[in-house]
Parts: sequence; structure tokens; C-alpha cells
Amino acid sequence: MAHIALKNEDIPGISGLLYNRPDTAAPLMHLAQTILRGPSTLSEGERELIAASVSNWNGCHFCFSSHGAAAAVLLNRDIDLLDDIREGLKETEVSGKIRALLVVAQKVQINGKEVTADDIARAKEEGATDDEIHDTVLVAAAFCMYNRYVDGLGTWSPKEKEAYRESGERLAKYGYGTRKS
Amino acid sequence: MAHIALKNEDIPGISGLLYNRPDTAAPLMHLAQTILRGPSTLSEGERELIAASVSNWNGCHFCFSSHGAAAAVLLNRDIDLLDDIREGLKETEVSGKIRALLVVAQKVQINGKEVTADDIARAKEEGATDDEIHDTVLVAAAFCMYNRYVDGLGTWSPKEKEAYRESGERLAKYGYGTRKS
Repeated sequence: MAHIALKNEDIPGISGLLYNRPDTAAPLMHLAQTILRGPSTLSEGERELIAASVSNWNGCHFCFSSHGAAAAVLLNRDIDLLDDIREGLKETEVSGKIRALLVVAQKVQINGKEVTADDIARAKEEGATDDEIHDTVLVAAAFCMYNRYVDGLGTWSPKEKEAYRESGERLAKYGYGTRKS
Repeated sequence: MAHIALKNEDIPGISGLLYNRPDTAAPLMHLAQTILRGPSTLSEGERELIAASVSNWNGCHFCFSSHGAAAAVLLNRDIDLLDDIREGLKETEVSGKIRALLVVAQKVQINGKEVTADDIARAKEEGATDDEIHDTVLVAAAFCMYNRYVDGLGTWSPKEKEAYRESGERLAKYGYGTRKS
């Protein structure tokens, strides 16, 4: 049970909140579509990986599982990618650039002020452009919002990673179109 | 100097980032306009007060000062409201409902999971509706994004509160229309 009454209590995570409030759903979906599917030299899979990692660090099970499952589809990985995100991507082949950008994202997750000139220099050494640093910071910052929205209102979420397979495929294929209420 | 090159280095805080990237500015402004100026039974001044308080807790000087200055105009207060927000609103007359919602916002600022059933029950006892709790959580969560975006990219900001008077008046009067690049 969420902290507030929702039009449909059966819909988990942010989906129930979006269905409940189409007025705020519109800009929230607009933002997700822009930062995760809009033009960027970071691939859709890389951006979903950053989103899932930040959600994991924030302990937001619904966002972590949903975006991890989308990343798995986009990166041609199995759903077990979720376990590896939790372990710090020990098993997954990830470029030096993405590892350096994940360090920036992890600092953003704590607080924007934690990002140092050295973190940025390191990402640039690994080949990250200014726009890629921008996109990483914005995705990480945005998931600090989505995670708090989902958990701050006490929504429920399915536990098992297998429950996120289908939504991962849907998010990979269709992205974040504005939902009809 | 920000961590990345910007089209115009003279524009402070989030304004320089919005000018730099019109693609991501559009949904960010859409969201700000919706949550701070869209329909809600929380007044525009009350929502700006929540935004400024969260920004203060996150230590984001630019957002704190900008939204505190907007709150001051909307609540018919002097720019010294900024000092009182920092002190926990000891001098400002604030309803029991808003004080209870600020407790919820402060929990959201730490992490969504910090919000307890008791925090919600207390806000409801003080007269907060489900939609008001929703709007508070979303504003608080959104400023955890805006603050990290502004600070994570190392933007500069004017120090003195007087520097935010004019923008406070503009935000109070015109809100957050999408900026032309």
C-alpha cells in the first residue's frame, strides 16, 4: 500500500503514480524520453545502465529492476545483468569511459558537490566528451528524483528480477511515450 | 568555471545549463512549470518554500537563493526570508500543515525510504490531502535532481542574496516558460 490512495493500487512503482496523476506524468515522461532515448553519443543501453546503477545506490528496487532489465535488453545481456550491477559490474564488459562516467554518477548520487575536477579529468582522459559528462550528470540527477518519488510515496514493487523481463523489453522497444490516463 | 564548456560562461547556475542544451532544457522547464505553477492546492509560494528548503538542505546555493527569492515575492516577504529558511523558518508564520509537509520533504531529501507512515499520518492530521502529500514529495524529489544537476556540473552562482531579488520577481511573475536558445 502506497502512502496515498491511488486510482489503481495494483500498478507497481512509478507506473501507479503516473496513472494516478496525468498532469505530472506528462513532464516526467517527457524528461525520461529525452534523457534516455533522445540524441546522445551515449547509447541507450549505456544510459539505462547509469540509471539502473544510480537506482541501485539509492536502494530503489523498482527503478533499479526496471531500468536494469531495459539495459539488459539493449546491451544484449541476460536478466542476470541485474545481479552484476549490484556487484559493481565485475562480470560485464564495460568501457573505461563508462566506468569513469559511473564514478561521476556515483558522486552525483551522493551530492552534486562531491564531483571533483579529478573525476571529470579522468572521464575526459577515458574519452568522454563534455556532452557525455553532461548527459551522465543529468541522468544520475534525474534518477535521484525518480527514486525518491517512487520510494517517498511508499509504492510497492515486485521482488523477483524475472518479473521485470517483460517491462524491460517494452522499455527497450518503445521507450517512454506519454501514458494515456 | 563549470566542469564542462558552456556556450555562455557568464550565465550562472542552471540558467547556463539550460541555455547550453535546449534539448534537455525543454523537459526540465516543463517539469518545473508543472510542479511549481500547475494546478495544486498548495500555493505557488508554499511550493517555492519547499523547493528552497530542499535546495538549502542539499547545499545548492543557486537553487536555494533563486527559489527562496521567488518564495519571498509570492509570500509577500522580504529577501531576508532566505536567512530564515536556513534557520528552519523560526521567524516566518507557516501553517502546521506546511511544517508537517516540510518534515516529509526533509525525509525525501535524505532518501525516499526515510518517509514513514507516521510522517504521513502527521501531515494528514494537520490537514494535508493525498494530492498535497504527492505534490510535496514530487517537488522535494525534483529539487534533489535540479540541485545535483547544478552542482554536479560545477556551475558558478552569485553569493549575495540581493543578487537574486530580480530573478525572484521574474520567477514569481512569469514562472518557468521554456527558454529560447
